[in-house]
Amino acid sequence: MSDELKIAVVGAGSPYTPELIEGLARFRDKLPVREIYLMDINERRLEIMLGFCRRFAKHLDYNVKIEATTDRKTAFKNADFINTQIRVGGNERRVFDEKIPLKYGIIGQETTGPGGFMKALRTIPVMMDIAKDVEKYSPDAWVVNYTNPTGLVTEALKKYTGVKMVGLCAGGMRPGFRVAEALSVDYQRVKYDYVGLNHMNFAFNFTVDGRPLTEEEFGKASELVGSVDVELIKKMGLMPSAYMQYYYHTSKKLKEFKEAKYTRGEEVLMLEKEIYDAYADPKQDTKPAALAKRGGGGYSEVALGVMKAIYNDEDRWLVVNVPNNGAIRMLPDDAVIETPCMINRAGIKPLAINNVPPTVWGLICAVKNYEQLAVEAAVKGDRDMALFALMAHPLVRDYDVAKPMLEELLEANKDYLPQFYK
Amino acid sequence: MSDELKIAVVGAGSPYTPELIEGLARFRDKLPVREIYLMDINERRLEIMLGFCRRFAKHLDYNVKIEATTDRKTAFKNADFINTQIRVGGNERRVFDEKIPLKYGIIGQETTGPGGFMKALRTIPVMMDIAKDVEKYSPDAWVVNYTNPTGLVTEALKKYTGVKMVGLCAGGMRPGFRVAEALSVDYQRVKYDYVGLNHMNFAFNFTVDGRPLTEEEFGKASELVGSVDVELIKKMGLMPSAYMQYYYHTSKKLKEFKEAKYTRGEEVLMLEKEIYDAYADPKQDTKPAALAKRGGGGYSEVALGVMKAIYNDEDRWLVVNVPNNGAIRMLPDDAVIETPCMINRAGIKPLAINNVPPTVWGLICAVKNYEQLAVEAAVKGDRDMALFALMAHPLVRDYDVAKPMLEELLEANKDYLPQFYK
Amino acid sequence: MSDELKIAVVGAGSPYTPELIEGLARFRDKLPVREIYLMDINERRLEIMLGFCRRFAKHLDYNVKIEATTDRKTAFKNADFINTQIRVGGNERRVFDEKIPLKYGIIGQETTGPGGFMKALRTIPVMMDIAKDVEKYSPDAWVVNYTNPTGLVTEALKKYTGVKMVGLCAGGMRPGFRVAEALSVDYQRVKYDYVGLNHMNFAFNFTVDGRPLTEEEFGKASELVGSVDVELIKKMGLMPSAYMQYYYHTSKKLKEFKEAKYTRGEEVLMLEKEIYDAYADPKQDTKPAALAKRGGGGYSEVALGVMKAIYNDEDRWLVVNVPNNGAIRMLPDDAVIETPCMINRAGIKPLAINNVPPTVWGLICAVKNYEQLAVEAAVKGDRDMALFALMAHPLVRDYDVAKPMLEELLEANKDYLPQFYK
Amino acid sequence: MSDELKIAVVGAGSPYTPELIEGLARFRDKLPVREIYLMDINERRLEIMLGFCRRFAKHLDYNVKIEATTDRKTAFKNADFINTQIRVGGNERRVFDEKIPLKYGIIGQETTGPGGFMKALRTIPVMMDIAKDVEKYSPDAWVVNYTNPTGLVTEALKKYTGVKMVGLCAGGMRPGFRVAEALSVDYQRVKYDYVGLNHMNFAFNFTVDGRPLTEEEFGKASELVGSVDVELIKKMGLMPSAYMQYYYHTSKKLKEFKEAKYTRGEEVLMLEKEIYDAYADPKQDTKPAALAKRGGGGYSEVALGVMKAIYNDEDRWLVVNVPNNGAIRMLPDDAVIETPCMINRAGIKPLAINNVPPTVWGLICAVKNYEQLAVEAAVKGDRDMALFALMAHPLVRDYDVAKPMLEELLEANKDYLPQFYK
Repeated sequence: MSDELKIAVVGAGSPYTPELIEGLARFRDKLPVREIYLMDINERRLEIMLGFCRRFAKHLDYNVKIEATTDRKTAFKNADFINTQIRVGGNERRVFDEKIPLKYGIIGQETTGPGGFMKALRTIPVMMDIAKDVEKYSPDAWVVNYTNPTGLVTEALKKYTGVKMVGLCAGGMRPGFRVAEALSVDYQRVKYDYVGLNHMNFAFNFTVDGRPLTEEEFGKASELVGSVDVELIKKMGLMPSAYMQYYYHTSKKLKEFKEAKYTRGEEVLMLEKEIYDAYADPKQDTKPAALAKRGGGGYSEVALGVMKAIYNDEDRWLVVNVPNNGAIRMLPDDAVIETPCMINRAGIKPLAINNVPPTVWGLICAVKNYEQLAVEAAVKGDRDMALFALMAHPLVRDYDVAKPMLEELLEANKDYLPQFYK
Repeated sequence: MSDELKIAVVGAGSPYTPELIEGLARFRDKLPVREIYLMDINERRLEIMLGFCRRFAKHLDYNVKIEATTDRKTAFKNADFINTQIRVGGNERRVFDEKIPLKYGIIGQETTGPGGFMKALRTIPVMMDIAKDVEKYSPDAWVVNYTNPTGLVTEALKKYTGVKMVGLCAGGMRPGFRVAEALSVDYQRVKYDYVGLNHMNFAFNFTVDGRPLTEEEFGKASELVGSVDVELIKKMGLMPSAYMQYYYHTSKKLKEFKEAKYTRGEEVLMLEKEIYDAYADPKQDTKPAALAKRGGGGYSEVALGVMKAIYNDEDRWLVVNVPNNGAIRMLPDDAVIETPCMINRAGIKPLAINNVPPTVWGLICAVKNYEQLAVEAAVKGDRDMALFALMAHPLVRDYDVAKPMLEELLEANKDYLPQFYK
Repeated sequence: MSDELKIAVVGAGSPYTPELIEGLARFRDKLPVREIYLMDINERRLEIMLGFCRRFAKHLDYNVKIEATTDRKTAFKNADFINTQIRVGGNERRVFDEKIPLKYGIIGQETTGPGGFMKALRTIPVMMDIAKDVEKYSPDAWVVNYTNPTGLVTEALKKYTGVKMVGLCAGGMRPGFRVAEALSVDYQRVKYDYVGLNHMNFAFNFTVDGRPLTEEEFGKASELVGSVDVELIKKMGLMPSAYMQYYYHTSKKLKEFKEAKYTRGEEVLMLEKEIYDAYADPKQDTKPAALAKRGGGGYSEVALGVMKAIYNDEDRWLVVNVPNNGAIRMLPDDAVIETPCMINRAGIKPLAINNVPPTVWGLICAVKNYEQLAVEAAVKGDRDMALFALMAHPLVRDYDVAKPMLEELLEANKDYLPQFYK
Repeated sequence: MSDELKIAVVGAGSPYTPELIEGLARFRDKLPVREIYLMDINERRLEIMLGFCRRFAKHLDYNVKIEATTDRKTAFKNADFINTQIRVGGNERRVFDEKIPLKYGIIGQETTGPGGFMKALRTIPVMMDIAKDVEKYSPDAWVVNYTNPTGLVTEALKKYTGVKMVGLCAGGMRPGFRVAEALSVDYQRVKYDYVGLNHMNFAFNFTVDGRPLTEEEFGKASELVGSVDVELIKKMGLMPSAYMQYYYHTSKKLKEFKEAKYTRGEEVLMLEKEIYDAYADPKQDTKPAALAKRGGGGYSEVALGVMKAIYNDEDRWLVVNVPNNGAIRMLPDDAVIETPCMINRAGIKPLAINNVPPTVWGLICAVKNYEQLAVEAAVKGDRDMALFALMAHPLVRDYDVAKPMLEELLEANKDYLPQFYK
């Protein structure tokens, strides 16, 4: 790795790109970036982002070359880190992911359930293609992925390509953030065990400076999850991912979704116009106010953490998505899990986990089984496998639901599923 | 083991007891039984059964001493095999198991889901007590259990007592029966792999005389499952337990249950009167016609198979419920599974399984997780554990459902749950 | 499988072939053999054996067609069972296996240690070739192997070819034979646990008719091992393979070997002349007296047991060599182990083993590691791997010994090691 | 953990204590130690060390309170770290460990083989006793052990007591030191995989700044192992512990030991007088020259690394001895291994290892099996277990050697083996 890093951003037209620029600027002492290549297939957004990012860098006094390209070779050649953050089909397609399942009485959500499943089917072939170009143009580069569903994308790429890759999600840090907030301490002082998959995980054994949390402190932090009943969390003694709401409060969430005027995807579509208008304004050189409404964030922080740990050869504990490789005995080696890892220049290695909570191991297995089938279906364009995946999913399972819903989902996404419609 | 066997039957007031007598008579050459002790706490039924069984034995020309007792010591002392087939709370309580879940939009069924869960909570403490008396009065006896839910009962007793025990269900033989029927061959010529738990299992790799089944033959046999979509079975290439209908056709079954005039328990209650009246008739010395309507059967056949294999030291392949002990790598050692075993006088040993089907391993894990939590809750009378068990169950999961439903279930079964109401 | 079986015997010139004929004759009711094809590359011995076997069959009143051929296709075509019992390099080469290690202060023995290692290097390529012809001419046939070292040969063929195959050794039955003899009971009444590899294994938990052996009975049976200190066996509570003498009495055996006038191979070479002269005598139609001095035996009994269990679709417990496939958790799936299996027409399945004795698991792992490396070396002709194999062997280990000894062994076997000298 | 640390040193009379003082002084910014309690049962040495350490601290300008005590309570009360470095029986007994095995033709060495075994038998009961006092007087303290054999001591204490504990050895860092020296880079830039046990381990997959070593670089670094043939190391691609010389060059080492005028223990005994005379000299306030001849070192560096990582809550990669707990699938959970861990204030967690080298896994298992049996023998005073331990050891194995050697070893150590002579 040279002392003058090249960073590529795939899907750079995303409104989140400035967050990454901001992170790189903040840690410029630790990450000597010489050039950033923004890459996207949407030329209009790319142009807007190039303009804004340059203004934003200047505003941040961050001296770095920023270029835009629609060509992967130009973007990847000699890159050290390739950040991938694509959304195949855009938020237009996301709306389908949200709405179609609801017709069948099933949660429609971007990453969990059949929504995430469809996103995986659309996304994995494109990401496989990107991975092949990485292998071709910059085989030593690290692919730092925050394309969702990150666990499935990472599993597909680690299984079927040779890229060096890690899947990211801010979720791995949130348990620490919550405890830090509840106790008013720095989040680095909070440690915890963490078991599961992306958006299906549990944190426990919290300590602050090595001291275990009191029940009261744990309760206080648990309130910050916001979407899962606090009494339940306290009984379990496990802080769940906020996405566990779809499993533990399925009926309630379903009702909410059905009653909502707009789906999240529809809201985002409306917001995006506002955000891009702001980005396009040549006077705009800071993050626009509308972005806050978009939510998210934290992603770039994890990405920065990983890149810093690799580049500076720190030994850094971080929760990321990697193949299991023996970390959790009950799961297959090639199953990607979201798990505490040690990161340094030699790579990313999961810690051995010997205390999967007795109350939730079956659910983790069930969802992982779904994920493995979904990856196979996505890579091979296999309709039966797609059906088995939905039936393996705890939120679907029922054949009489899965079968017609799958047909409708595939049909609605036809244009983005060459592997199924060849 | 002596040449003059003593057999005890716990819960002998059950209308199925004559099936056992019939089986013993049929295999009298292989099982030299000298005496059969019928034991029950229901004195009236016990008396009826004693009378009938003696008449029935005579009718069968089966020369054996049959006695009745309400005393475990008398029944167990020097027994070689102790058949347990109790129903704690009777079919009256079963009706609650069936009806209460329905109020919450959840399948109410005797063995699967919250119904089976409640049955386990009522049954396990009584079975633990019986096991302790077996250890006391006849520690070398084999407990041959067909008390449901047999997997959970077996797990509780193997974990928390020292009895020699096996859990039975006719389900392990049904895949072979179906293929035999479809192909018009003797069922002994059919072999298959079999993976899973009681009422949650899959058979595959069928052969007849060592020759793999054709797709057509497999399809024909699959039609005999009767309750799971045949197209689905053929796609999966796995023949499921008929109880898988509750998982794969949940919404359909729920609708049926809601629309049914009577639950199965209610029907049985009505039938029972008719059956016992027949049994009580001093002229009745064959199985009454009404019994056929009760269904079931096959149980005693498996029981006979196990007892014969042990007594005669045959090496016999049979699917029974035993602790995993390394047979399936992903499951804990103490998890009871329904699995192919080799049975002879030295005991019952599971075959190693290295081909858990990739499409269903997660579901098996999910249900096994539920089972382990349910056993803990039943043994310890732990309400939180009971809640976690229901939430781990794929048919419940939703906290907002599980919590109130659990309260109602416990309250309705109060009189049979000393461990929860102490 | 037809009702008129064809059996092929590869290496039929072996003096043991008549034992197989005798076994087939004895079990003619259970195994309806129509024809036996004797195959060998040594035409003189083949001719002698053809003549003798025909006379022997006649003497036994066994009506079967016996033919001889040097052509694999003729032998294999439509065969149901193919018995392989070759000795590549003959007993001449065996003498080298015995003598060369002794020069380095290492046990020289036909199957254990560097002797067995060299036998594996010579034998595996030939057996691979045979396997390929089986796949070509009779893919459904069962290869019943008693070519030594049977564990290594089986591992190579199961890993690198697609034949249906099982590796046999009488050793798996010996623990039962010994207890039967000591207690004067039929060996079928004796059951036991059995863990390990071919010639590296331990039997324990003995029962007779389901009753555990007393310490005294175990001691009496242990004396029949003959080659391992009885006090040691009693302390361990594990009955070892007689071949464990080379591990537990290394120095004593080494002394014996060094002082012996002739190696076993040399003795056998002298005996063979006598035996073949007897076989060649046209008046000889029973097993010649000299054969008893040759020892061995039991092999054909196991082979018959396996063939009968498969053909008659018995569920039969037998100890044979098969891939681990999850039977023993600490060993790789593809590691061939000598282990209790359930055998019927559907195949051969290992029982799950959850009680590897705490006193010997490391030794089993060490020898298995050697075996896996030896198989790789044999298949690939890899000298480094051959060195690592010898260093992994508990009887060699020392690099300063392994290196020159390997060179000398390879050189002495040059003509039989095309994979190393290409 | 307070901001004013108390450190206890058990066995503080050891000549290595000043190394620890020096380390603490060097890292005083990172480890704010207020007081150091030197504890020993040898009052003379303790007094000498107290005097010297105070002078040494002054010389180092290290402002810390240093006290001496023979009382564990005084030493342990409120301690944060308890460094244990005892030698039960002293170097006098070590000489027996070295000499007795040689009489039987077996390597006599302080940690490997029967020498280490005897050291374990003498040491473990004393360490168990110390652990119980730690639990009593300072249950939150970390026991940082470098008492040998550190793997066995750690396994005994983790299995049979509740102390927080880690076993140290400089061996875990040596592979990095060697590569650093060979390439003239800072050792922190060198990363590697590391698999095995204390003094039985292998490092591989070396990188410098994330770049894999060339074969030439690996060869150069391998030469620095010094005691194992470099050609062998290069062939294996695994850098072994220097102690692997006793396994890979057994005959050569045995010859050396037999021909040596003095054993290492005898040399050390002679040196010790010289060293203690120097320490006792009131003018001596730096490490005496004689100490260099004593060798060792590095220990305190690892100890400092661990204490710093815990106290400062660094995420630090270090190779230490901890229970396996799922890190290496083939080994039991309670087996202590020397393995890469992530260390911070929340504790010490092993990384998952999925690439145990195919050439050496069996040897690691064999030695681990010995270790587990030795720990049981040491804790329980079980002679049979002690015999099985020696027979499980790859360097002994032969019953005819193990049995008389064990008797002689036990007899010679009688006064230090209360558990065997009660």
